[in-house]
Amino acid sequence: MIAEQTLTDQYLRVRAHSEAICRGLETEDYVVQPIVDVSPPKWHLGHTTWFWETFVLVPNAPGYRIYHEDFSFVFNSYYESVGRRVLRTDRGNLSRPTVAGVYAYRAYVDEHMSRFLDTADIAPELYALIELGFNHEQQHQELLITDIKYILGHNPLFPAVEMPITEHRPESPASAVSLAEGIYTIGHRGNGFCFDNELAPHKVYVNDTILSGNLVTNADYLAFIEAGGYQNFRFWLSDGWAWVKANDVQAPLYWHRVEGEWWNYTFDGLKPVDKDVPVCHVSQYEADAYARWKGQRLPTEFEWEAAAQQLAWVSRWEWTNSAYMPYPGFTTAEGAVGEYNGKFMSGQIVLRGASVATPEGHSRPTYRNFFQPDKRWQYTGIRLTSQ
Amino acid sequence: MIAEQTLTDQYLRVRAHSEAICRGLETEDYVVQPIVDVSPPKWHLGHTTWFWETFVLVPNAPGYRIYHEDFSFVFNSYYESVGRRVLRTDRGNLSRPTVAGVYAYRAYVDEHMSRFLDTADIAPELYALIELGFNHEQQHQELLITDIKYILGHNPLFPAVEMPITEHRPESPASAVSLAEGIYTIGHRGNGFCFDNELAPHKVYVNDTILSGNLVTNADYLAFIEAGGYQNFRFWLSDGWAWVKANDVQAPLYWHRVEGEWWNYTFDGLKPVDKDVPVCHVSQYEADAYARWKGQRLPTEFEWEAAAQQLAWVSRWEWTNSAYMPYPGFTTAEGAVGEYNGKFMSGQIVLRGASVATPEGHSRPTYRNFFQPDKRWQYTGIRLTSQ
Amino acid sequence: MIAEQTLTDQYLRVRAHSEAICRGLETEDYVVQPIVDVSPPKWHLGHTTWFWETFVLVPNAPGYRIYHEDFSFVFNSYYESVGRRVLRTDRGNLSRPTVAGVYAYRAYVDEHMSRFLDTADIAPELYALIELGFNHEQQHQELLITDIKYILGHNPLFPAVEMPITEHRPESPASAVSLAEGIYTIGHRGNGFCFDNELAPHKVYVNDTILSGNLVTNADYLAFIEAGGYQNFRFWLSDGWAWVKANDVQAPLYWHRVEGEWWNYTFDGLKPVDKDVPVCHVSQYEADAYARWKGQRLPTEFEWEAAAQQLAWVSRWEWTNSAYMPYPGFTTAEGAVGEYNGKFMSGQIVLRGASVATPEGHSRPTYRNFFQPDKRWQYTGIRLTSQ
Amino acid sequence: MIAEQTLTDQYLRVRAHSEAICRGLETEDYVVQPIVDVSPPKWHLGHTTWFWETFVLVPNAPGYRIYHEDFSFVFNSYYESVGRRVLRTDRGNLSRPTVAGVYAYRAYVDEHMSRFLDTADIAPELYALIELGFNHEQQHQELLITDIKYILGHNPLFPAVEMPITEHRPESPASAVSLAEGIYTIGHRGNGFCFDNELAPHKVYVNDTILSGNLVTNADYLAFIEAGGYQNFRFWLSDGWAWVKANDVQAPLYWHRVEGEWWNYTFDGLKPVDKDVPVCHVSQYEADAYARWKGQRLPTEFEWEAAAQQLAWVSRWEWTNSAYMPYPGFTTAEGAVGEYNGKFMSGQIVLRGASVATPEGHSRPTYRNFFQPDKRWQYTGIRLTSQ
Repeated sequence: MIAEQTLTDQYLRVRAHSEAICRGLETEDYVVQPIVDVSPPKWHLGHTTWFWETFVLVPNAPGYRIYHEDFSFVFNSYYESVGRRVLRTDRGNLSRPTVAGVYAYRAYVDEHMSRFLDTADIAPELYALIELGFNHEQQHQELLITDIKYILGHNPLFPAVEMPITEHRPESPASAVSLAEGIYTIGHRGNGFCFDNELAPHKVYVNDTILSGNLVTNADYLAFIEAGGYQNFRFWLSDGWAWVKANDVQAPLYWHRVEGEWWNYTFDGLKPVDKDVPVCHVSQYEADAYARWKGQRLPTEFEWEAAAQQLAWVSRWEWTNSAYMPYPGFTTAEGAVGEYNGKFMSGQIVLRGASVATPEGHSRPTYRNFFQPDKRWQYTGIRLTSQ
Repeated sequence: MIAEQTLTDQYLRVRAHSEAICRGLETEDYVVQPIVDVSPPKWHLGHTTWFWETFVLVPNAPGYRIYHEDFSFVFNSYYESVGRRVLRTDRGNLSRPTVAGVYAYRAYVDEHMSRFLDTADIAPELYALIELGFNHEQQHQELLITDIKYILGHNPLFPAVEMPITEHRPESPASAVSLAEGIYTIGHRGNGFCFDNELAPHKVYVNDTILSGNLVTNADYLAFIEAGGYQNFRFWLSDGWAWVKANDVQAPLYWHRVEGEWWNYTFDGLKPVDKDVPVCHVSQYEADAYARWKGQRLPTEFEWEAAAQQLAWVSRWEWTNSAYMPYPGFTTAEGAVGEYNGKFMSGQIVLRGASVATPEGHSRPTYRNFFQPDKRWQYTGIRLTSQ
Repeated sequence: MIAEQTLTDQYLRVRAHSEAICRGLETEDYVVQPIVDVSPPKWHLGHTTWFWETFVLVPNAPGYRIYHEDFSFVFNSYYESVGRRVLRTDRGNLSRPTVAGVYAYRAYVDEHMSRFLDTADIAPELYALIELGFNHEQQHQELLITDIKYILGHNPLFPAVEMPITEHRPESPASAVSLAEGIYTIGHRGNGFCFDNELAPHKVYVNDTILSGNLVTNADYLAFIEAGGYQNFRFWLSDGWAWVKANDVQAPLYWHRVEGEWWNYTFDGLKPVDKDVPVCHVSQYEADAYARWKGQRLPTEFEWEAAAQQLAWVSRWEWTNSAYMPYPGFTTAEGAVGEYNGKFMSGQIVLRGASVATPEGHSRPTYRNFFQPDKRWQYTGIRLTSQ
Repeated sequence: MIAEQTLTDQYLRVRAHSEAICRGLETEDYVVQPIVDVSPPKWHLGHTTWFWETFVLVPNAPGYRIYHEDFSFVFNSYYESVGRRVLRTDRGNLSRPTVAGVYAYRAYVDEHMSRFLDTADIAPELYALIELGFNHEQQHQELLITDIKYILGHNPLFPAVEMPITEHRPESPASAVSLAEGIYTIGHRGNGFCFDNELAPHKVYVNDTILSGNLVTNADYLAFIEAGGYQNFRFWLSDGWAWVKANDVQAPLYWHRVEGEWWNYTFDGLKPVDKDVPVCHVSQYEADAYARWKGQRLPTEFEWEAAAQQLAWVSRWEWTNSAYMPYPGFTTAEGAVGEYNGKFMSGQIVLRGASVATPEGHSRPTYRNFFQPDKRWQYTGIRLTSQ
């Protein structure tokens, strides 16, 4: 049995968090798209709204009227023009709809969603879709934070804004976690929500391994920089070395050397690098090179999941050395929702854990995040593994 | 003798026009940069202000305090980072300073400029610089209009905005202008303002020529499209044909074929193409191909100037077949102002006349506008010439 | 104890095969490099010779004199300029050294190698290096064949040349191979040669699986083409679909539609596609899309290896759905030889088996070949897997 | 009346010179295409042959049989595939037809051309076409030399080859040439051959000018390099400066700094720069920057032509400051020959004079050579002009 009342509350709480993230922004901050990976905040706010309108209200709420016929192609993810339209949309160049217009769209959809959730009899299939909508909006909440950071962190004025995240300072060295050779069951089990890529649960054979109890800190990583890590090809994967050369990479994203000292951009502005917190905004190439320099390696996603219960893992998305591939028994849903994850299973690397930017309630030990190995605008970090 | 009072008025009138152009914009419209040629409106408003601050106030107004130390590299044209700065600026990705911040900057500089112009004893060299400042801001006023048009005209919502320009509808066919073979003097003479590229006046030998009294209209140009003009390489310069193929060009900029009819974006929104007005937003490649299809050609800038008095030329910037090169006796000023025009004398084509977007008082028969031959976001048109 | 006499024979046999592959070429065929993946045949002949000179003769053969001081950077793999050199080499633009010059280099090195192998007392470490040299040259033999095919197959004259390979025609449908769920040991065991990437042997848990006994044939693949497989994004990985669109892919490499019929280039020239042989020259994207269209999937490399003994696998390199990653316990050798495989463990996909172009004696069930998923100039094919 | 016998001789002499240029080459040197501007020597030899076959023999020689049906698209200039062909040709990747095959093609066409010229009654229109053919082949002779130089000069072995050109060493300083203000007639007059772009003759008004009697030498140009000319943006056109930065240009093409000394590649191999000869292989950007550094400028093509009789001009193609535009009265021929020059009149700069690589008899004061301003693989030089 499903408690409809709670569902409305839950809906409104998720929706409110998206707006809370943007509370400190100026109108102009919502608009720009400095790189293709980063979407304008107003697009995230519009796109998540479009999801509810398109997949929940239109097919299920009798008499619902679409807010604006053009928004469906401005805010979908696929940029296809439809109907009489003659232009490809291009997220970063769209000054309209305005920010106020997007908030009005959110208010309209939220009102209709609340009314719908309050009164409708929600069948299990629809409930599953609504739960997917919550998780979809939560994924965009983390992207909102990382995209806002990219926008402000690449502005020469380095503006500070309030942002509802808290950096965790590791209190004391944590013990390493030893994993005994044997068969482990991997993947999501039970009744709770999970994405399709966490299925099916299956057995994996894992060897003896030791995972570090701590993430690599800025102090640790500085030692790599100072040891010439970015200048020595021996530590790097071939693709990683090409990436370092092509982009003249010298440090993690947001780090700047100012008069001999390393500073980095945070939501408090440009600040001296805090040596005690886990290194952040590194690519998998950098994570792998650092590990190699230390004579260690990155864990596989299976080792990580097998050890997850014994690890403290809420601070950084942890790069693994596992390519993002389907689990045995993986299947995709019918229709557009089926495109959710499966088609991205090529060229990407799994990250495990969660980060300071991950919304509450949106993490679990079986969660598989994934990005290309050169991406580093997420809150990514490094956990060493040996043997 | 210079009337200082008048100069303040003149200054404030020029400055007010820049803001009048932007009156219909939403905050978001000021921010985006869809292509590298198009600058965000707030950048134009800041950059023209920076010009007054840097070249007039700082060296001449005793005790003037710079508004914000970082604005000098955000709003100069050269994108060099200076001092402790660690980031390259990138006009289209800068959400800060905000639009309100730019208007505050304008107000501060305008106040100081007014006070300075009211009280200072303006030497002739400084007067020349102030006049250059007026003309510089007027150039950016036309760019403001064309850039706003590009931003809104590439938004799938095709927003209408109020804009202080009026399309001229040619009343009746004008007579062709015959130019008799002989020596003509070209270039600016007299005491009024001109840019360095209009100097020195010099003699040019021109052959018998006939320039059309009318610009090519949309109806004329449609005939070229319908005759397969964009599909037949014989009409095109080699570079032009490559441009057509690479960009899949099928019509002037802002034209869209919707259900068999041609529409185009104007500041009133997406409208059916008005057949009677001069064709607009064509590249020199298109102008040249059209002329070739008609068995005619584009005029040289010398033919145009020699005939200017007999032509009606305020509606479109008219593509010539003259490369933008220095006149005999051309010299550049010392210092940064000397970079104004001369260094662009490569790879560009001269346009003559003026357009509906040109500010009042900013046109003259010797004016040399210039753009690369593929550019078409300006109000460019075609005048045929024969013999 | 090592039989030195045999080693010389073995050396000369391997070396002779490289030259046999090139026997049908014209001088001009040795020179060109149509794409970056394809090296000019004369480079392969020179590079393999440089390997023997640099790693065996120079450090081990007393009194050996380098053939030509400049060849070390013309023929190494890394394009670094050294010494007084002022130019980067660029394999595809080097007309010198000539083909005759390269054969003279081979003859010189072969003479010195024969003398060295005949007389030297070969320690185990050196023997391992020589064995690596054999395998290195054999890898380049397969590349010689595929690169020659690319060069001639992209020439509008479609020249036929003799080439020592034989297409295997599958005689009759082979039974599918069922793999029972359980633990399998993967990786190379025993004393024979293997590459570092086949180590260490380790246990893997494999689920119930059925691998097709036959490879997908041209007839099978034609059905996919005719069913619109290249036009329907639903069958494709996101990266694969982008690759299809960007390259306008419509069929396997070397296929051309001529007057309604499919032809393809073989070493016999342009011929109608032979429907009975296994499809060849497909990317992993195409292999994956085909499998998805059939409602099946590609095997993992572990499934493949576990089933290898029961499969007929000498005809095509078989795309797996396994990213190329290190095995547990993988380590790299010291020095330049250590760069052999490990640094490529990013962004590539494992292929298993062997192909008609693989030299005799250069295949085994644990061999891990690897290429990016868009590459298709190798003899790549498809084996379907279900469950 | 036309002397047919002489025409055959003339034909064979022109044809023999193309082959004489290639006499020192190895087969491999004929094949490669290091950059798009440079064609493989065998392509030049085939293309000029195709011209005779296609435009003279096929339409005029009764019973002539085309040598090879596929050569027409391998050797035309436009790369269009025709008929049953399925591949775009790509000059630099074509190993076939072989060099021997191209020489056989030349021999076949030469035999038929000789027979035809010996016996046919050549009408004036055909004579004009044959004369165009001579000039076309002569243009490719200069390109053969410059392209061979590029191929060998970018080979790290820096091979020396015999080449039928002689560097002229200027004997003594020549007097400057003063041009008096007034009207000059420009363009080709009389009955001799000229290209369409030299027509129609027309009047031009030229101002008082002084052209240097000497070209800028290597010693002169070295002073510019040593004065930091490549590091100071003030001397450069905006496009030129962008070109310097993008390509990290530090010296003329073929110059290399080896242990503190400047060397350059010549057909004798890599040699110390000869200070006394005119600087060569500079772009127009470099020519313009050098002139600006000297407080002078480049001549216009009209100044050059007006002064030509008084200048010594056989050593380098001299960059002008004139864009390549049609003369008054310029018309193009009907058909494919009409595409010869006119369609390139965009984005290019006129060069005047001739070079040490220009075939005897292929130069005249009205000749207009043209290249983009960044090109420098031709024998280009600098003549300063003042006032």
